[in-house]
Amino acid sequence: MSYAFALHGGAGPRRGRQYPRSEAHMRELTAAAERRLAEGRAALDVVEFAVAEMESSGIYVAGRGSAPNTAGHVELDASIMNGANRGAGAVASVRDVVNPISVARRVMEATPHVMLSGTGATVFARDQGFSIIDNPREYYVLPEGVDEEEVDEMTHGTVGAVARDSAGNLAAATSTGGTFGKLQGRVGDTPIIGSGTWADDQVAVSCTGVGEFFIRTGAAVSVAHFVRAGASLGHAIDEVLADVKKLGGDGGIIAVTNDAEIVMSWNSDGMKRGCVREGGNVEVATFES
Amino acid sequence: MSYAFALHGGAGPRRGRQYPRSEAHMRELTAAAERRLAEGRAALDVVEFAVAEMESSGIYVAGRGSAPNTAGHVELDASIMNGANRGAGAVASVRDVVNPISVARRVMEATPHVMLSGTGATVFARDQGFSIIDNPREYYVLPEGVDEEEVDEMTHGTVGAVARDSAGNLAAATSTGGTFGKLQGRVGDTPIIGSGTWADDQVAVSCTGVGEFFIRTGAAVSVAHFVRAGASLGHAIDEVLADVKKLGGDGGIIAVTNDAEIVMSWNSDGMKRGCVREGGNVEVATFES
Repeated sequence: MSYAFALHGGAGPRRGRQYPRSEAHMRELTAAAERRLAEGRAALDVVEFAVAEMESSGIYVAGRGSAPNTAGHVELDASIMNGANRGAGAVASVRDVVNPISVARRVMEATPHVMLSGTGATVFARDQGFSIIDNPREYYVLPEGVDEEEVDEMTHGTVGAVARDSAGNLAAATSTGGTFGKLQGRVGDTPIIGSGTWADDQVAVSCTGVGEFFIRTGAAVSVAHFVRAGASLGHAIDEVLADVKKLGGDGGIIAVTNDAEIVMSWNSDGMKRGCVREGGNVEVATFES
Repeated sequence: MSYAFALHGGAGPRRGRQYPRSEAHMRELTAAAERRLAEGRAALDVVEFAVAEMESSGIYVAGRGSAPNTAGHVELDASIMNGANRGAGAVASVRDVVNPISVARRVMEATPHVMLSGTGATVFARDQGFSIIDNPREYYVLPEGVDEEEVDEMTHGTVGAVARDSAGNLAAATSTGGTFGKLQGRVGDTPIIGSGTWADDQVAVSCTGVGEFFIRTGAAVSVAHFVRAGASLGHAIDEVLADVKKLGGDGGIIAVTNDAEIVMSWNSDGMKRGCVREGGNVEVATFES
């Protein structure tokens, strides 16, 4: 049984620009995820680790690298799903935690619920011993190198990870931060199990893009349905991205199957991404490789 | 082209009890929905109408008939989807609007977003001219006849409606209120497009039950996938309810196809429900009929 891992840093990159800092970070992070999988760590732990590192880095539109909504608040969304038992956890519109993905995992493990939103998510996080950011405006900063004008890029800046561990289990995790111009309280696909994130015993999926279109296509669970119906993973993802485009949206999807196949596709200009399979090399790219 | 309509008042009824008040209300409401469809009204208008009436009635666990969470607040969730273009709108954890389903529809029609949560949903509703409830504790009341001990019943008290109009378009809407013992900020399947609600050009679906299991099975959009793969509507719903049960949950699903077939199934004790097809009679029941 071999492991496999993939991550994305969003489908927002614009052709003609360069992303050396995030590419270097993704390379280092993919290698660190591989070390954990090689040590036998569970897929669930590894996707949480990778997404938490991206949230804390300040160089993606998630966690520290986020932007205020129209009301001046950063509001963060995240979700995680364990393919082994379809356990799932999510937080939506939370304003003051360092790692939304870890709070999402705690929702999965310490409550009968899947999703907590807003102040309720903060109350839960504090009760569970997570540190709460006292001054979110000081803590949250724009991703390095991002110009406030780059709204398109910011609406595609979600991060995510998928993994298959050496025991054969799959997991997926996705996280995003406030994007310019969204209304207060707006929830995109990222914290929605079945839209932004999905994992079962066949496939683990994480999406990025204009979230509303990924909700209206049931994107992540639809990949799983197409795979279950016999489509190749690449074809399943193409079907869903074509459906997103048909409604007027764009973005990208990464996924891994239970036989360790990885597919990373997008129909925007590019998608920041990295992956590795057991016995292979770490591959990182932003545009066509 | 013939119309069809179905509604549910939740899958919480316990065997041995009687529900004359909600059955009478559902009968009247189903007839009113039929009149609208017979007049040529759009499926989207009719499902919004039916769910709004149920929210305002005070006899279901939605809108007026809701219960406080562990922090003492009623928090309401609702979503609506237009099968004609897969437009969708939702509100989550909103505390102070009369008809969450109508605010959800406005999110669909007046913003680029699908879901608004918490205070952001209230701010939006006020800006759009919806009246805000000044004293939610006075306005929201327990559904008539519900005993505070009946937690199981309260966790299955969601309402919903599906319709096919005479132009051949489908729509679905679902709404729920606070349930005893849920954590502050908890969001179930009801406002989640693909989990509690789905509509496309083939089928419209509304779910009720223990929401977390309907999220973890991608319930509503999974019905659509099974139908698209060639399953009968009844078989598609059976598959999804069996999957919900496999994870440990229960509940019910109502759906209508583009050829006006209606299926209403559940794997809890019963499901409050009503339906009518063009040229047929209004049928209302709570347990096996």
